[in-house]
Amino acid sequence: MSQGKLFVISAPSGTGKTTVLKRVMAELPGLSFSVSHTTRLPRPGEIDGKDYHFVSESEFQTMIDQGLFVEHAVVHGNFYGTSWRAIDQQCASGIDVILDIDVQGASILRRSPQVTASHIFISPPSIAELEKRLRGRGTEKEETIAVRLSNARIELQAINEYEYLVINDRLEETITVLSSIIVAERARAHRFPSGQPIGEIVTV
Amino acid sequence: MSQGKLFVISAPSGTGKTTVLKRVMAELPGLSFSVSHTTRLPRPGEIDGKDYHFVSESEFQTMIDQGLFVEHAVVHGNFYGTSWRAIDQQCASGIDVILDIDVQGASILRRSPQVTASHIFISPPSIAELEKRLRGRGTEKEETIAVRLSNARIELQAINEYEYLVINDRLEETITVLSSIIVAERARAHRFPSGQPIGEIVTV
Repeated sequence: MSQGKLFVISAPSGTGKTTVLKRVMAELPGLSFSVSHTTRLPRPGEIDGKDYHFVSESEFQTMIDQGLFVEHAVVHGNFYGTSWRAIDQQCASGIDVILDIDVQGASILRRSPQVTASHIFISPPSIAELEKRLRGRGTEKEETIAVRLSNARIELQAINEYEYLVINDRLEETITVLSSIIVAERARAHRFPSGQPIGEIVTV
Repeated sequence: MSQGKLFVISAPSGTGKTTVLKRVMAELPGLSFSVSHTTRLPRPGEIDGKDYHFVSESEFQTMIDQGLFVEHAVVHGNFYGTSWRAIDQQCASGIDVILDIDVQGASILRRSPQVTASHIFISPPSIAELEKRLRGRGTEKEETIAVRLSNARIELQAINEYEYLVINDRLEETITVLSSIIVAERARAHRFPSGQPIGEIVTV
């Protein structure tokens, strides 16, 4: 059985990444979601162990000290991290894993020689549209919106460090493009063992 | 307007490439087919200028001498070639172009510094299945089938020189995978101008 593939997906807060990822994972078999650890408080409806592992700062710090994270970063004043455990087991069983991490985490991951991943950036069509979406949530304070917009401007500078750019303008199109990237990466020739009789190669 | 992208697609004779390409091109907008030159005789239903430019050996030789080909090769005793003209005009107008060329031609193209393309190999699920398909055509002589199978075995050795491998087992799945590769390549981040305000980037 071949090893599962890693997909690193970053997007400025408010881009609609969560909605997109849920839809793509519902439509495409053989994909799973790496559950990150965070010290931020759960939003309404978020479930511990499913959306995130919600932990305290001291628990997070202990995990850092024990080297349990592939990457970790501080975003909007909260810690976020991806544990080795969250990806190892799934990849080993041939499942492709989506890592939903921010540009800092993705940058750390790209420099890690033990990890090979496809890096995908989902962007809003424009900063103005992002602002509209953030206000549309109705859950964010003015100062939070200002911080997120300011961070988005910085994050957009990192696009060229990514292999793929998906602009989330129309949702259905975004889902098609993201699914296509995953299907295409699965058809990468180097994923197939060299010299193996073609009839024994697993159909993509 | 951004430059169109080139997709080099190779497959052993009998793999079903022509059927697959026709379907993908019917379903995906913004794609066109580079019409190759060949010295082989037209098969029933093939149209000059659409399926191929059918030319004599001396005409072909003149084009070689004039440097009009990006690549050319001899396959099954016939000349095949892709002219610069066939791809330049379409790419310049932002259309993505599919080059249907054999492994020799693809290999030459990969070594050409003026040409950047995505290389895709479509393979039959097995040699046995390929033999079945070739016989199923009902148009090929025994000795032609033997030559094609022998060539297929050689061509399959080149898979690892390609970026993508699509195994044509079930037609609908093959069409999905090939379309996905094209959609994914269009979402490559380096296709977008660096530093441009995100709102001005053309939606993928």
